[in-house]
Amino acid sequence: MAVLHTEMKNGILLRVADLLESSAGEILKANRADMKEAGKAGLQGAILERLTLTEERITGIAEGLRQVVQLEDPIGEIEMMKKRPNGLLIGKKRVPLGVVGVIYESRPNVTADVAGLCIKTGNVCVLRGGKEAHQSNKAIVNVFHKALDESGMDPHMVQLVGDTTRESALAMMKLDTYLDILIPRGGAGLIRAVVENSTVPVIETGVGNCHVYVDEDADPEKAISIVYNAKTHRPGVCNAAESLLVHQKVAEKLLPLIGKELMKGGVEIRGDASTCRIIPEAVSATEEDWSTEYLDLVISSKVVDSVEAAVDHINKYGTGHSEAIVTENYTHAQYFLDRVDAAAVYINASTRFTDGFEFGYGAEIGISTQKLHARGPMGLRELTTYKYVIYGSGQIR
Amino acid sequence: MAVLHTEMKNGILLRVADLLESSAGEILKANRADMKEAGKAGLQGAILERLTLTEERITGIAEGLRQVVQLEDPIGEIEMMKKRPNGLLIGKKRVPLGVVGVIYESRPNVTADVAGLCIKTGNVCVLRGGKEAHQSNKAIVNVFHKALDESGMDPHMVQLVGDTTRESALAMMKLDTYLDILIPRGGAGLIRAVVENSTVPVIETGVGNCHVYVDEDADPEKAISIVYNAKTHRPGVCNAAESLLVHQKVAEKLLPLIGKELMKGGVEIRGDASTCRIIPEAVSATEEDWSTEYLDLVISSKVVDSVEAAVDHINKYGTGHSEAIVTENYTHAQYFLDRVDAAAVYINASTRFTDGFEFGYGAEIGISTQKLHARGPMGLRELTTYKYVIYGSGQIR
Repeated sequence: MAVLHTEMKNGILLRVADLLESSAGEILKANRADMKEAGKAGLQGAILERLTLTEERITGIAEGLRQVVQLEDPIGEIEMMKKRPNGLLIGKKRVPLGVVGVIYESRPNVTADVAGLCIKTGNVCVLRGGKEAHQSNKAIVNVFHKALDESGMDPHMVQLVGDTTRESALAMMKLDTYLDILIPRGGAGLIRAVVENSTVPVIETGVGNCHVYVDEDADPEKAISIVYNAKTHRPGVCNAAESLLVHQKVAEKLLPLIGKELMKGGVEIRGDASTCRIIPEAVSATEEDWSTEYLDLVISSKVVDSVEAAVDHINKYGTGHSEAIVTENYTHAQYFLDRVDAAAVYINASTRFTDGFEFGYGAEIGISTQKLHARGPMGLRELTTYKYVIYGSGQIR
Repeated sequence: MAVLHTEMKNGILLRVADLLESSAGEILKANRADMKEAGKAGLQGAILERLTLTEERITGIAEGLRQVVQLEDPIGEIEMMKKRPNGLLIGKKRVPLGVVGVIYESRPNVTADVAGLCIKTGNVCVLRGGKEAHQSNKAIVNVFHKALDESGMDPHMVQLVGDTTRESALAMMKLDTYLDILIPRGGAGLIRAVVENSTVPVIETGVGNCHVYVDEDADPEKAISIVYNAKTHRPGVCNAAESLLVHQKVAEKLLPLIGKELMKGGVEIRGDASTCRIIPEAVSATEEDWSTEYLDLVISSKVVDSVEAAVDHINKYGTGHSEAIVTENYTHAQYFLDRVDAAAVYINASTRFTDGFEFGYGAEIGISTQKLHARGPMGLRELTTYKYVIYGSGQIR
């Protein structure tokens, strides 16, 4: 697979996209079976919503694959080639990671996204989806198998784990002889379990306790719209803001305006003493609130006395995902950029932009919150590694 | 530390180099104490040799640090900066990993190498050396502390774990809240223990079951000298060859010549049936031999019937370290380069070149045999990660 030409890989992806649309009926039927089981099992709103497929969503998945076709294939690129004093030519060549394992929860679109990105990068993928979505996942993977088979490729390039018990996930975590990387996509509990149990190298994804810091030199309008957008645009996702920090010099003036806007959007504010004094509707935050990823219409709020204090708070409580400062002050902006330890640090923009599509990477396989290998949105390039290729003419040491 | 200027970091390293030389007496005294204990504990030749410091070796360590000063500082470099359709400027900035943990065995020079590379890259290091070298390590770390202190820096940038029991190593493996990366440097047992127990992201290093494949179109002289060099130049290191593969078409002619040379160098040959027939002095290899890293004057040898068979054997038994083909055939060379899955793949050169100095990276912190984050010799760049810095003007989604 590492030596497949881009044309071949793109051909498979286009065929999958077409087949997904023409097989929409079967996929939706499988999805309805999943939904029925989920209903019986008493699953709640957000999970059911993620699980649901529609004709439109399937078209969206197919469109996503067509976009991946448009992306440049990183495989085979020689990034560096230098001549050493002894005449050895040493090059660094982009190659697939090998076998990519992904453990995820209820979203069937992840199946197609991951398989598509892996095909484009010449990786084999082993998919362990949630049991709620198993029928839907099987229907989607069948489409990939059909397209691979038609192209004369081994359908095992895309593998769905048939066993959706906890045991199968645990077993995958120990397959370091076979898997080159394991990516958990889901809630904090799943991610923690993978980090603790896996002997396969893991990429931690997703947990986002993201902050917006409104500096003393913030433009009030930008502050209000960025905080509002970061919190309310899609509160259930990892790049949504969970915590607001406001400089004390502008707290009296700006917090009431920001608070009013947030409350109009149905947001509950959990504040420190200063916030609660300035916004009477706010409830008292506990220590736990500062490290909580609500994934809901709730925000914690604290008044700080300097950009330094804001950065310290963020580096203490943040999860290294996305952090934003709103300021017109050059030095404060640079200080924040330099000192905040996170995958994505924003000046005067919403944290909601941390995402593969927004960064121009096409689809994404997850958002890394660790520092090794990949940070932030992981696209095609993050599914690759390199090898050194060395051209000699008989050199020995 | 992430924002220290290169001048400052270089100044510290130069000061450490000078202090190492002027404190050589104290370091040697500490080393003699370690050697005495090691002698009492009945430690053997190779370990004692690695443990030994001399005036000359200390000068070598100091020189190594001065070379690190000469290397370009990767920190702060913006590798990419692009404008998105919504006007957001998105850049990728090189930053330190953060806190680097290293667990190693008896070599005191590792202490200075790792601390030097970490200072240059703005990383904190937590060093857990072997108990055999603890006095020597302490003396070396004292020198770093003195130089850091003189520069007004926090000496905790370089930390030596005082407890050298197995428990302290195990405890380090669970410190994922504090350590960003954990690198085991030592034997296969240590590396396996770290992979199995660590919740900190690990870089596997070092195990090298390296092959030299002599193709049907090999130049005989290159074949003999490369095999001889790869096996005998320094048999105890990870980039030494452990296994020889020879194409059947040239086995009758070349194996006796290669074998003679190897045996002159005191190498024991463990061969398959064909090898044993061609080289009567060879002993029969068992299945276990194909996957053994001897780290000694022993080599396994097998006759194969094609470059494809050679590549299959290597991908089955190799450890992803360094692999070489000797050939004058363009297509065979490219096939080998493309298909062998290893950190470094050589055409017509000895596997012994896989090393930070030989690759032009100055010192190295280890040689990665995994695919995530870094592959092959890890120098300064491999001790860094990136963060996205995003310049907005009020953008929201």
